[in-house]
Amino acid sequence: MKEINPHISVDCVIFGFDMHQLKVLMFDRILISPEDHTIIFSDHTLPGNHIRDDEDMDTAAYRILYELTGFSDVYLEQFYTFGSVERLSKQRDRQWLSAIGKDPETRVVTIAYYSLVPVDKVNLDDNAWKHMPNWYGKRPRWYPLDQLGYVAYDHEDLITKALGTLRERAVTKPIIYKLLPDNFTLSQLQKVYEVILDIQLDKRNFRRRILNSGLIVPVRKKQTGVSHKPAELYCFDMKKYTGSINNPLYY
Amino acid sequence: MKEINPHISVDCVIFGFDMHQLKVLMFDRILISPEDHTIIFSDHTLPGNHIRDDEDMDTAAYRILYELTGFSDVYLEQFYTFGSVERLSKQRDRQWLSAIGKDPETRVVTIAYYSLVPVDKVNLDDNAWKHMPNWYGKRPRWYPLDQLGYVAYDHEDLITKALGTLRERAVTKPIIYKLLPDNFTLSQLQKVYEVILDIQLDKRNFRRRILNSGLIVPVRKKQTGVSHKPAELYCFDMKKYTGSINNPLYY
Repeated sequence: MKEINPHISVDCVIFGFDMHQLKVLMFDRILISPEDHTIIFSDHTLPGNHIRDDEDMDTAAYRILYELTGFSDVYLEQFYTFGSVERLSKQRDRQWLSAIGKDPETRVVTIAYYSLVPVDKVNLDDNAWKHMPNWYGKRPRWYPLDQLGYVAYDHEDLITKALGTLRERAVTKPIIYKLLPDNFTLSQLQKVYEVILDIQLDKRNFRRRILNSGLIVPVRKKQTGVSHKPAELYCFDMKKYTGSINNPLYY
Repeated sequence: MKEINPHISVDCVIFGFDMHQLKVLMFDRILISPEDHTIIFSDHTLPGNHIRDDEDMDTAAYRILYELTGFSDVYLEQFYTFGSVERLSKQRDRQWLSAIGKDPETRVVTIAYYSLVPVDKVNLDDNAWKHMPNWYGKRPRWYPLDQLGYVAYDHEDLITKALGTLRERAVTKPIIYKLLPDNFTLSQLQKVYEVILDIQLDKRNFRRRILNSGLIVPVRKKQTGVSHKPAELYCFDMKKYTGSINNPLYY
């Protein structure tokens, strides 16, 4: 097995949707004083690490995500590479890197991936994160986008850019359903579009257009366990997807 | 000045449009036998090189592009990072890297940029490329996408992915006009859309929609030097652009 390459890392922005808001998965990063065991700082970091010289980048991204979270079958897509000279130079990031035995002077370029996961399929209470390197303080948790707190390195830039990419993709490719359960209501689908695009959609127009696309089909079941009148459930039909880009000139 | 980082490079896919087809700018790469001075091989490579440890990636991309082509005011956008373990391992690429004093075993990740330039503003006959490293065989030339010939490394993958990105951007952001002269006819605009999206557009619908968008305005001049009836000229009006993504659900 070849060495870890100290200049190249991957980081993952994992989005989840709880039917109300968009969330991102982050680890707590807690630096403890070796002298008096007090907390020097506590903040949040995206899952990520360096790649090995003998593995392809996508492989590295899946490996790192699995090691850190136990997720093995999620959708990951590379969206941007961050390599500012200043990206590791904040005081607490330098402290942290020194504490875990890395050289803060090393130039590190990070290839960023984003992922969309249905939060109902992700169990953060299992034991997967025991595999994570012992310098992570705690298990991963979901943070709403407007309550990220202090974020390590340039990871807030990664999250912002990932969200921009997601907005662009959401109108050109059918990927948004990856945030939903296998079966979903049209209201849930509308809500996830509204949250991601930060717009209000007209219910009737939305339903007409989305059903006309042929990509969303009824599963002939209704919602259960709701206090209101149960709505029809739908699923995404990949067979109908031709791979063509929606062309707004001709929509 | 810090060292060149041997693990990280940038490469540029520069697109131009000659009113008929899309072209990409490449250098000839010619390996000459030191013994009998015969040509061992001759193929094409994208402009690119390694970054310095003290420069940001965009800065490195602009510097490298300027050094290789003399272009200094073009639009560059990062679109993907290529890091396959195998990307430098083809026989002739290993030969080439050894000949220019690089180690073919070094893992190199390349951050790829694409650029859209109006071919009428680019003068490949000036002396800019005299700055280029002496191991490039010849000045850069435009190659039609369907006549690329043998392309070095994984650069054909870079071109394919850049084209995919350009297709997606073309329907979400007003960037396509960067391939045209400052003033252009609606037929020219339609043609560049058709070539990039690989579709046929209906002339009347296209004109109605593109003028309704408010982003294309008449300059109150007509074409000159054409044998047919001169058409009205238009320009892109950046003041009207709000930065919002075209939403095909509501177009």
